[in-house]
Amino acid sequence: MIDASPALRLTARDARCDATVVSVRGAEIGGTEVVIMAGPCAVESEVQLLATARAVRSAGAKVLRGGAFKPRTSPYTFRGLREEGLALLAQARAETGLPIVTEVMDARHLEMVSDCADILQIGSRNMQNFTLLEAVGACRLPVLLKRGMSATLSEYLQAAEYIMAGGNDRVILCERGIRTFEPSTRNTLDLNAVPMLKRHTHLPVIVDPSHGTGHSWMVAPMAAAAIAAGADGLLIEVHCDPPSALSDASQALTPGEFEQMVGDVARVAAAVGRSVERAACHVT
Amino acid sequence: MIDASPALRLTARDARCDATVVSVRGAEIGGTEVVIMAGPCAVESEVQLLATARAVRSAGAKVLRGGAFKPRTSPYTFRGLREEGLALLAQARAETGLPIVTEVMDARHLEMVSDCADILQIGSRNMQNFTLLEAVGACRLPVLLKRGMSATLSEYLQAAEYIMAGGNDRVILCERGIRTFEPSTRNTLDLNAVPMLKRHTHLPVIVDPSHGTGHSWMVAPMAAAAIAAGADGLLIEVHCDPPSALSDASQALTPGEFEQMVGDVARVAAAVGRSVERAACHVT
Amino acid sequence: MIDASPALRLTARDARCDATVVSVRGAEIGGTEVVIMAGPCAVESEVQLLATARAVRSAGAKVLRGGAFKPRTSPYTFRGLREEGLALLAQARAETGLPIVTEVMDARHLEMVSDCADILQIGSRNMQNFTLLEAVGACRLPVLLKRGMSATLSEYLQAAEYIMAGGNDRVILCERGIRTFEPSTRNTLDLNAVPMLKRHTHLPVIVDPSHGTGHSWMVAPMAAAAIAAGADGLLIEVHCDPPSALSDASQALTPGEFEQMVGDVARVAAAVGRSVERAACHVT
Amino acid sequence: MIDASPALRLTARDARCDATVVSVRGAEIGGTEVVIMAGPCAVESEVQLLATARAVRSAGAKVLRGGAFKPRTSPYTFRGLREEGLALLAQARAETGLPIVTEVMDARHLEMVSDCADILQIGSRNMQNFTLLEAVGACRLPVLLKRGMSATLSEYLQAAEYIMAGGNDRVILCERGIRTFEPSTRNTLDLNAVPMLKRHTHLPVIVDPSHGTGHSWMVAPMAAAAIAAGADGLLIEVHCDPPSALSDASQALTPGEFEQMVGDVARVAAAVGRSVERAACHVT
Repeated sequence: MIDASPALRLTARDARCDATVVSVRGAEIGGTEVVIMAGPCAVESEVQLLATARAVRSAGAKVLRGGAFKPRTSPYTFRGLREEGLALLAQARAETGLPIVTEVMDARHLEMVSDCADILQIGSRNMQNFTLLEAVGACRLPVLLKRGMSATLSEYLQAAEYIMAGGNDRVILCERGIRTFEPSTRNTLDLNAVPMLKRHTHLPVIVDPSHGTGHSWMVAPMAAAAIAAGADGLLIEVHCDPPSALSDASQALTPGEFEQMVGDVARVAAAVGRSVERAACHVT
Repeated sequence: MIDASPALRLTARDARCDATVVSVRGAEIGGTEVVIMAGPCAVESEVQLLATARAVRSAGAKVLRGGAFKPRTSPYTFRGLREEGLALLAQARAETGLPIVTEVMDARHLEMVSDCADILQIGSRNMQNFTLLEAVGACRLPVLLKRGMSATLSEYLQAAEYIMAGGNDRVILCERGIRTFEPSTRNTLDLNAVPMLKRHTHLPVIVDPSHGTGHSWMVAPMAAAAIAAGADGLLIEVHCDPPSALSDASQALTPGEFEQMVGDVARVAAAVGRSVERAACHVT
Repeated sequence: MIDASPALRLTARDARCDATVVSVRGAEIGGTEVVIMAGPCAVESEVQLLATARAVRSAGAKVLRGGAFKPRTSPYTFRGLREEGLALLAQARAETGLPIVTEVMDARHLEMVSDCADILQIGSRNMQNFTLLEAVGACRLPVLLKRGMSATLSEYLQAAEYIMAGGNDRVILCERGIRTFEPSTRNTLDLNAVPMLKRHTHLPVIVDPSHGTGHSWMVAPMAAAAIAAGADGLLIEVHCDPPSALSDASQALTPGEFEQMVGDVARVAAAVGRSVERAACHVT
Repeated sequence: MIDASPALRLTARDARCDATVVSVRGAEIGGTEVVIMAGPCAVESEVQLLATARAVRSAGAKVLRGGAFKPRTSPYTFRGLREEGLALLAQARAETGLPIVTEVMDARHLEMVSDCADILQIGSRNMQNFTLLEAVGACRLPVLLKRGMSATLSEYLQAAEYIMAGGNDRVILCERGIRTFEPSTRNTLDLNAVPMLKRHTHLPVIVDPSHGTGHSWMVAPMAAAAIAAGADGLLIEVHCDPPSALSDASQALTPGEFEQMVGDVARVAAAVGRSVERAACHVT
């Protein structure tokens, strides 16, 4: 069981009567419906973002993901369009009606990112960037907090505790694979984390099988597995033209593959008493 | 992708036209039906084994598991009833008609174990006991080869290659959790291994969520997740009275929990185009 | 060997003729002499810091460590004296003449921390806080970059590359233990990293056996081992009264233990052609 | 600290008044002297073995290592000369006077291997081959038990307990690297294990930096580090012509490199109050 010392005052299961449901422009994360967030790893251009956004919306995605600020291992690789990327995300939101989840890497960017984001993403490498956690804890937007790649579930809930201790109780957890000795996959997707977290906390738990596997052909079965394990949603990388992607090309689904995956996931969701609402949102 | 050097001559996907289906007394492992193997960690007594065997059969198990020889970390703990345990397994097979999977720890026991077993289990700790792999490779019985707790998938397929190189092509693979830094679960169940192995080999792949989690309440969701990921079957610890179990008490399901789990699994199996045949076998 | 793709333009061994020696108020890190940095985990009070500082200086430490901003797993534990801690570090520097290494957790604190620090420490949890790396890359002070707890050496050198790419070429690497399955120690000190890094980069490499073991009684043998493996220095937690320490009490040495450790290290240093200069610095 | 539950009755530090010293033909493993065991990974030919044996003896090795039975990941690679290899080891012992340490992989080979071995080696992959542990526990020869590649220290001591519970109290422990996420080295040499084991058990502890690093150029610094950490001896792969070696070529030292390594180790041994006796044994 998860070690909860020091005590988890706010994130623990019994700190609330009910499970937390995070509502974002009509998407209810943590409710009966399985919520799928999808989009490109990085925002690359207007054409790329808009084409992908329309495709994922029509296939059933309820939230558009896309990185404007990209944490990259090397300083010499593409690190995102930054302000320009945020503007494109705002445009995509306006055109598709999809709420936006995008990463904030630095507290100094928080105001700028908040102007365009509906959900602030804290990436794996920043799961224990405690001043950033405090900053988003003081924020009005929901936070999607990704598990660190070698974080125990205890440390993960303590990180969520930082955000809630700051007054922001709309935290979404996201298992995205941990670092192990196995080299055939980019990470080892730890689906054990799903029932374990659901038992210990009232917060919604989603899964990112794109980073959790690193291979586009593995995304659909592992997305289905995540829902079978009890996940409340999915975070999926989709690109209108994966071979041309500037980052994570090998793990991005094409729009067609994504549509098929949504069908697979919907069948499994129904088998576990959940649903995937596939009618597209209306453009606002 | 799985490193296949030196080349996997016999286990590789393209070494065969079709997927391997291992037939054991009517159970078809690797076919459309999901095969559930269930029973106690260790054979403890006639009453315990028979009560558990009847319960798992009526709930839908197609193979009875039970250890007569138990590999235990400490020399001072219960290590199995040995010959007496094998005799009880033979009795359970006679009374329930269920084929038996049981572990062989030593080539010197092979003849004795083969007299009662329908499937020989090689445990995680012996995945690279190469002389034992050669011995079961020369055997007429199917082999359930569990993944070593820190084995890469490449090493795992090479271990299967040892068995096939000996002439035995009825090998069943079993993901049972790997060793990581996460302490809340006994192991980290690596469900990524399921689609990855299915892509690289023609052998059937089953999953053991009992060892993969270490907690009985996690077995059902993770069993469902395994099937959603594409597993061909499950290996589940069930005990007629878990609190009294001499080993692995915390991860054993009661017969009632097992029956419920089979129902959960059957719904997910149907959602992915598989089935769980739940009508009980007839006593032979 | 360390994967160097994308290419390591600035940190690679052959990017420089000679090994980098970082000079800080008379301490030469990366030269023949083994440099010992020591002090408390966290600055707690004037009495605690000054007593510890004087003790480590007289035993041979050349740099004083002490945290004013402390990254802590839980938001409910002591997180440092912050500005007040920085003022105490400045006072300790004035009284003992020892240069100060202290952690900066956030780019917004950089100016404030730089006023008192001689070396900026980037902690393990921030090894891939890329905007922080860029910020210290634009700084005039040397940077002690600790290895992330699950960072490969390739990722580690890419993180150092971020700092150097910003124009700051005074980077000191520090192995401090990695996360593995072994529970008896806080981390697994990866001394393989020392010769491996020394072969691939011109930067100095030091070792932190306090975090690398988590047990004060293990610090001396592992400090000696680090020097035998080729490390250029050590980072050691010392507290004038370990049982009263507000953080990391179990791994802090007493001043007496530290003095003994320096003797042990000096003998091993001599055996590998290095030295530990033990005459105390003069107060400035 | 090492979890000792179930209790370690025979291996625990306080189960004996004094540290265990294993005497083998004049070599005292666990005493003040550092004992170096060296030789080829596998016995390949008379010329190879004898040339290597003479070289390591004259450089200071006190025990000759060499594998006749080789556990190999793939069934299609060289797996040792078996009986012929044992005969060559017996010949090398006769010609050089060096005692032999060689691996036994299967209890059925025990009598045959015991005829030529002075120390029986249990390899990492067999650390939890419990019937083999029982078999060597009933044997008159000392046992060199290598740590499993993902064994906790608790599991490791329990494995040693199996051997001692069988009546054989001459067990030598050997840290040889553990499996982690770091890809630049073959394994992560866990030198923390040395002081941790020395504190918890009376058994001698040696280190294998050849497998612990996988790179010949890392062997000397890591051998020195092992001795600085408190190890009682070393196990080193040496080959008279490494490029032609049939296994582990990249980690074998040449005789010249080995001689230099012994010098490095001797200096560090002296610095920690130990010694390496370098006068060659006399031929018997």
